Amino acid sequence: MGHSSNRGVVYQGPGKVEVMDIDEPKFVSPSGKKIDHAVILKVLSTNICGSDQHMVRGRTTAPAGMVLGHEITGEIIEKGSDVEMLNVGDIVSVPFNVACGRCRCCRELDTGVCLTVNPARAGGAFGYVDMGGWVGGQAKYVMVPYADFNLLKFPDRDQALAKILDLTMLSDILPTGFHGAITAGVGVGSVTYVAGAGPVGLAAAASAQILGSAVVMVGDFNKERLAHAERMGFVPIDLGKHDRLGEMIAEVVGVPEVDSAIDAVGFEAKGHSGKEQPAIVLNSMMDITRVAGNIGIPGLYVTDDPGAHEQAAREGSLSLKFGLGWSKAQTFHTGQTPVLRYNRQLMNAILHDRLPIAKIVNAKVIPLESAAEGYASFDAGVAAKYVLDPHGILA
Amino acid sequence: MGHSSNRGVVYQGPGKVEVMDIDEPKFVSPSGKKIDHAVILKVLSTNICGSDQHMVRGRTTAPAGMVLGHEITGEIIEKGSDVEMLNVGDIVSVPFNVACGRCRCCRELDTGVCLTVNPARAGGAFGYVDMGGWVGGQAKYVMVPYADFNLLKFPDRDQALAKILDLTMLSDILPTGFHGAITAGVGVGSVTYVAGAGPVGLAAAASAQILGSAVVMVGDFNKERLAHAERMGFVPIDLGKHDRLGEMIAEVVGVPEVDSAIDAVGFEAKGHSGKEQPAIVLNSMMDITRVAGNIGIPGLYVTDDPGAHEQAAREGSLSLKFGLGWSKAQTFHTGQTPVLRYNRQLMNAILHDRLPIAKIVNAKVIPLESAAEGYASFDAGVAAKYVLDPHGILA
Amino acid sequence: MGHSSNRGVVYQGPGKVEVMDIDEPKFVSPSGKKIDHAVILKVLSTNICGSDQHMVRGRTTAPAGMVLGHEITGEIIEKGSDVEMLNVGDIVSVPFNVACGRCRCCRELDTGVCLTVNPARAGGAFGYVDMGGWVGGQAKYVMVPYADFNLLKFPDRDQALAKILDLTMLSDILPTGFHGAITAGVGVGSVTYVAGAGPVGLAAAASAQILGSAVVMVGDFNKERLAHAERMGFVPIDLGKHDRLGEMIAEVVGVPEVDSAIDAVGFEAKGHSGKEQPAIVLNSMMDITRVAGNIGIPGLYVTDDPGAHEQAAREGSLSLKFGLGWSKAQTFHTGQTPVLRYNRQLMNAILHDRLPIAKIVNAKVIPLESAAEGYASFDAGVAAKYVLDPHGILA
Amino acid sequence: MGHSSNRGVVYQGPGKVEVMDIDEPKFVSPSGKKIDHAVILKVLSTNICGSDQHMVRGRTTAPAGMVLGHEITGEIIEKGSDVEMLNVGDIVSVPFNVACGRCRCCRELDTGVCLTVNPARAGGAFGYVDMGGWVGGQAKYVMVPYADFNLLKFPDRDQALAKILDLTMLSDILPTGFHGAITAGVGVGSVTYVAGAGPVGLAAAASAQILGSAVVMVGDFNKERLAHAERMGFVPIDLGKHDRLGEMIAEVVGVPEVDSAIDAVGFEAKGHSGKEQPAIVLNSMMDITRVAGNIGIPGLYVTDDPGAHEQAAREGSLSLKFGLGWSKAQTFHTGQTPVLRYNRQLMNAILHDRLPIAKIVNAKVIPLESAAEGYASFDAGVAAKYVLDPHGILA
Repeated sequence: MGHSSNRGVVYQGPGKVEVMDIDEPKFVSPSGKKIDHAVILKVLSTNICGSDQHMVRGRTTAPAGMVLGHEITGEIIEKGSDVEMLNVGDIVSVPFNVACGRCRCCRELDTGVCLTVNPARAGGAFGYVDMGGWVGGQAKYVMVPYADFNLLKFPDRDQALAKILDLTMLSDILPTGFHGAITAGVGVGSVTYVAGAGPVGLAAAASAQILGSAVVMVGDFNKERLAHAERMGFVPIDLGKHDRLGEMIAEVVGVPEVDSAIDAVGFEAKGHSGKEQPAIVLNSMMDITRVAGNIGIPGLYVTDDPGAHEQAAREGSLSLKFGLGWSKAQTFHTGQTPVLRYNRQLMNAILHDRLPIAKIVNAKVIPLESAAEGYASFDAGVAAKYVLDPHGILA
Repeated sequence: MGHSSNRGVVYQGPGKVEVMDIDEPKFVSPSGKKIDHAVILKVLSTNICGSDQHMVRGRTTAPAGMVLGHEITGEIIEKGSDVEMLNVGDIVSVPFNVACGRCRCCRELDTGVCLTVNPARAGGAFGYVDMGGWVGGQAKYVMVPYADFNLLKFPDRDQALAKILDLTMLSDILPTGFHGAITAGVGVGSVTYVAGAGPVGLAAAASAQILGSAVVMVGDFNKERLAHAERMGFVPIDLGKHDRLGEMIAEVVGVPEVDSAIDAVGFEAKGHSGKEQPAIVLNSMMDITRVAGNIGIPGLYVTDDPGAHEQAAREGSLSLKFGLGWSKAQTFHTGQTPVLRYNRQLMNAILHDRLPIAKIVNAKVIPLESAAEGYASFDAGVAAKYVLDPHGILA
Repeated sequence: MGHSSNRGVVYQGPGKVEVMDIDEPKFVSPSGKKIDHAVILKVLSTNICGSDQHMVRGRTTAPAGMVLGHEITGEIIEKGSDVEMLNVGDIVSVPFNVACGRCRCCRELDTGVCLTVNPARAGGAFGYVDMGGWVGGQAKYVMVPYADFNLLKFPDRDQALAKILDLTMLSDILPTGFHGAITAGVGVGSVTYVAGAGPVGLAAAASAQILGSAVVMVGDFNKERLAHAERMGFVPIDLGKHDRLGEMIAEVVGVPEVDSAIDAVGFEAKGHSGKEQPAIVLNSMMDITRVAGNIGIPGLYVTDDPGAHEQAAREGSLSLKFGLGWSKAQTFHTGQTPVLRYNRQLMNAILHDRLPIAKIVNAKVIPLESAAEGYASFDAGVAAKYVLDPHGILA
Repeated sequence: MGHSSNRGVVYQGPGKVEVMDIDEPKFVSPSGKKIDHAVILKVLSTNICGSDQHMVRGRTTAPAGMVLGHEITGEIIEKGSDVEMLNVGDIVSVPFNVACGRCRCCRELDTGVCLTVNPARAGGAFGYVDMGGWVGGQAKYVMVPYADFNLLKFPDRDQALAKILDLTMLSDILPTGFHGAITAGVGVGSVTYVAGAGPVGLAAAASAQILGSAVVMVGDFNKERLAHAERMGFVPIDLGKHDRLGEMIAEVVGVPEVDSAIDAVGFEAKGHSGKEQPAIVLNSMMDITRVAGNIGIPGLYVTDDPGAHEQAAREGSLSLKFGLGWSKAQTFHTGQTPVLRYNRQLMNAILHDRLPIAKIVNAKVIPLESAAEGYASFDAGVAAKYVLDPHGILA
């Protein structure tokens, strides 16, 4: 077996990640049960995610020693006896949600809240706090359970390798942005606003675009990210100018409102003052979204935020202008994206050259061993999405 | 014309309503424009609504002198030249929403947020603060604009009069309860929880029942209302016992969660202590609703609450446990009910004896002239729904 | 192992079924592969289905020697190593569709057209021609593959045994009738017509009822079945009176049209003359269904009908009044029911006493050894649904 | 009033249309009633439609003397007293469906089957046989009833005139193609097949494209149309090569099936032999559409076809391989497109340069007086969509 000398990115406490030797993956669940429905993957690409940053910044209760990484694309190098539809050598995309494919939620494709893979709460993920203890995939090798259900096989190996920088976005951010756009009700002709020009925001914008949106605006304070968004064909909204978002939107579309709004920021939102204001994005979306409109909220909100500035936010409570939303008959859609709902169709769009997502999120390949630098640079707000290259095959 | 001596229920300031002479209805809009698409109705029945109470309690910015009443059933006694599908003598149900039938929202049946009937904001209603200035229908006669679009004609006059106490609920509370149930995702086999055993809560419970819900629980502090709910076949949840709602639900269905939850309380919610806690119902619903579940919120939340105990609530802001809802991937549905989406089908259910809504909400007929006593008694929490009888034909 | 002396109902050629010794079930797929995701069930109840009759009448290409039976409820007596969520002793309902839970169709809960369990075409079933070779369950013991995904566990053993005659309908006809009603767009207040008063027709009618239909009409030529339908609260439409269906409907609801129509007859339809006319039900539904209405077609239509009277019908071609349907903007929904979409919610409705389906379809328990008599009697048109009792525990 | 000398295209019998003086439009309905909800339009552009050809070829029961034309864009030059939201000078798109905006169907935006504008059956249109007698708009001036409801106003006059060749497609073919794509379930990543490379087929293909389809194939016999389709970015399928459609599809996407299929041909379909075979398109779509797939059928099928080669087809009956469709669990969507469901969002896509529909359908402007030549040329199969220019402002 080729994965005996595994290496991975390990969280070592607030502000600190390190690449080090880690255990080789085994056909064993976090609870210690032998499982035959899993595969072992040689990781071909694995991305650093904004939600990893929440952990690394100490904004979660993640324990030190955890192997990070939930955006994984790989090649099957070993499979359990219950794996019937996949074979060694297949190249596959791994949804970040670990899901059993057998419970009520999975049967309804609510794989973001699988009922069985995490004894603590609904929903599992690789390498993530409170998500079931599944070992992360920012590593050379990783185990994926319920492989037939979870994995998306790419139809052709050579084609997959040729487009790997696009396809690597299928494990999380592209479906997450797409889920935001879908739940926000984006369709042909929609006027869309995306809060946040980071990778998920750009993926949401790209999703709105392929869904036929007439105009896609992206708001942020980060000028480098705004400039990149503009180069990609989106209308940048510079939140640093002033705090009257509706006014800026009216300059683009003539009215201070949009059909659909997507929150790609989450609980670490900042206001115009630069101070953290966890409810500011949600409140501004109620302001600018049309009556009877939908607000898609792929940005992460948490039940416990040990790093919050206010007591209420520490317990996940936000001061929301709910009366405003109610008077406008708006609907609010939350939660982890169920990747399996979307990744097959998004793969098709990529394979037929309709969705250049790597370019849109500005994918940058770095060696696995440079992960710590990647985390630091991403945290500093660079306009790029880092893709780790554990076996040196992307460079 | 028989409506020359009109009488109506007039709001006179916090805590005070009075029945007095009012203007006869004319074919003129609140802005003074002559309109040919309207009808004049002889009001056959008109109900007192919980949302009227918000005004009468002084919890809104309603001005003194306003004629109240948005739950209207009547007979057409005069019609404008543009009314093509209705005739004098037709008995009709009036949705509480005034809607033009011509704007983007009305075309999509989002009649709760019609864009043209209220210059101040989206959405119009009869006899309601900030809803466009349309004269209320707790009166002997009332004008209804855009009559062909807005009115639901009952197919048979005698049948309509025989079932008028059920049919009178079609103007608001039955569709409002139904909208709550629909947006909460209630379907065949659902386990449903309704917060509030007032008329809208009971209408929501009745709606959940006819939608096929397996169990319908209704929670309240008011023991008389709970006893009535139980007699109607719902499972009462006595919130006065303790504040662990999940525990009480588990006693009924074995687990501390429901498939669907409906907030039929709104912003004047009270906690176990008896103190007003405007976010308590919404927060408890996030607690008890299953992952990936829907929360229907027909209960009213407002942008301005001059009577609120806290400053945030005065501006319509609530402290919501949004992180909890997000971690459970819940969806939140708000807004005024678009009555036209539902009233035809609910009428059919009533006319074919499938939905005894008058009995379920405990309809009580009183004379129009006794409206003030009705308001007072309803405000005191009686387990009944008052139906005013302006022409003495219901008694 | 207690299932060494298995007995089952075997198709022996047109018009002939026989109960005989059959192989004991094994953890092996029809293709001979060892499978660990299966369970062995002791069959507690197993029903005779109208679609079994199609085979037994020689109207399909079913080979002699096939063990019949796809409506199965049982107790797990042995499980494979990959079965994680079920245990020996659990009482479960088996959907008639065999489905893998892992392919594109199963992920979207289109389990009626699973892509992997039948090499010949999409869709598998137990004991059915062209459906993958899975051994039928009109037997004492049966093997069920992909058990965690396919099986619905009843929450309480005693409760399940007490309601077994209702719960046994969850394996096929209740979800099939429900699918017909759902795809026909039945909702609260709908006027519904069901073609066929056999068990599936009655299940469709019961489904329309619990979905809130205002009126449910059921049409048939069989007077005994019509009388039973009427006793169950449905409006009988005696097709033997004349061939003007719209006229008969108008006598009930005032207009010659319905909101929703369900074809619970399928390709062996007969006209007023008594002659087989395979398109007559579909054509009559286009006539009576309202514009923009939906037609649900759970009744079976086949690609090959060796027993058809006309050449076109032998190849599954029907002469449809498609121009009529098109001019009315109707939608036509076909196919095997994906049972897993519905069985959990229908189970809840049964367990909470909201859906007395055994009574509605007039369930009759007979010994497994009397299966041949059951087939003959059902074929003769008796107003009953036969439930086989392989272990003598229902009587 | 400037429209006193009206000219229009008049059907004179099979094969013959003529431009001649016609009555000036008045505020009167076909039944002679004075109406105040109408406007008079100066027609800026009006297109020749394939469904006009059905009439002109004598394939319908259209009477001689009828003014043709249902694809109308114009400027309001006069309005009735009940028109509140539009003004003289507004430039508007007219949906081909005449709809009242007040009946059950219109309230649900099923404007293709409005219940009140046509005494003969549900559904009205301008200048079309059996569609209510509304005078057609291939003319200099035309009357449009229920103007507030029916008309789509372009936000800016200059912008509208600059894009008039695109916007003129909003009255029918673009929404019709879009409806086909929507009902066929086209979404991001879909593999789509469109039968027919005429203007509606190309509009369906363009719609599939903007909906995010991964591959859009268009099949036809006409080589000129196929060549144009290819230039527009679609994959041409030359049906003249052989009659194994699945094989040709497999050459493009590797498998002989598509996710979504759209019939943009209708009842005058021809087979490989060149002979008319009215069911051939529908049957081929059942063949190539995936299991659980949807088939969108915007192509027209009629209840009476006096020109049909077979008796069954003369009555609108088709020999359909329904057993095949059923075994694949397909859904069939029919009917006239309700333009109002889609035209606003499609207008937005055009105005923001996302949908160059004039180029895709190859719009060609000709004078109104040359309409007869346009009809002849279009009937001969030219790869173009003719736009009539009644006032010489497009050239």
